[in-house]
Amino acid sequence: MVKLSILYTQPADPQSFEERYNFNLSLLERLPGIRRRQACVVLGGPGGKSPIYRMLELYFDDFPALDSALRSEHGQAAGSDLMAFAGRETQLVFSEVFEE
Amino acid sequence: MVKLSILYTQPADPQSFEERYNFNLSLLERLPGIRRRQACVVLGGPGGKSPIYRMLELYFDDFPALDSALRSEHGQAAGSDLMAFAGRETQLVFSEVFEE
Repeated sequence: MVKLSILYTQPADPQSFEERYNFNLSLLERLPGIRRRQACVVLGGPGGKSPIYRMLELYFDDFPALDSALRSEHGQAAGSDLMAFAGRETQLVFSEVFEE
Repeated sequence: MVKLSILYTQPADPQSFEERYNFNLSLLERLPGIRRRQACVVLGGPGGKSPIYRMLELYFDDFPALDSALRSEHGQAAGSDLMAFAGRETQLVFSEVFEE
């Protein structure tokens, strides 16, 4: 199983971020092939505040499924919308998952 | 449920990193209260390579359980060892998890 992790950096305006985030989530949910979804609210890091504000993880069967979801019409729309509101440092990470 | 995410940056020497990572994992596994564990091998990001090399996620019942695991003897030993080999940019993130 693979996942797409979106690591959102701290927003300048959290209230506005939440609105844009929720709208973007409604776009991301239309991606084909999503098997699991995990939304994470960051509590902090060892020194107190973390540079990361939220994390969103979408799971797919394999990398081709993730890749074709991002290339799909819904994927392109969600990606453009994400880039328009998320901080420049926001990262997208593709990874293979091993669980116990 | 909460999780501790360790986001390891790209190592200068991947082979040496893997050895140190596996040893550190053996220390992290001794933390009290771990409910689930997920190890992620990063495949890349939208532009190709990601600044992140690996991700490790350890789940606990709640934030007090995570916090006391990190403050425990095993947590202190694993943390010191982690700081000794992981890149300066390696991040630890504590988050509350909502799953579907």
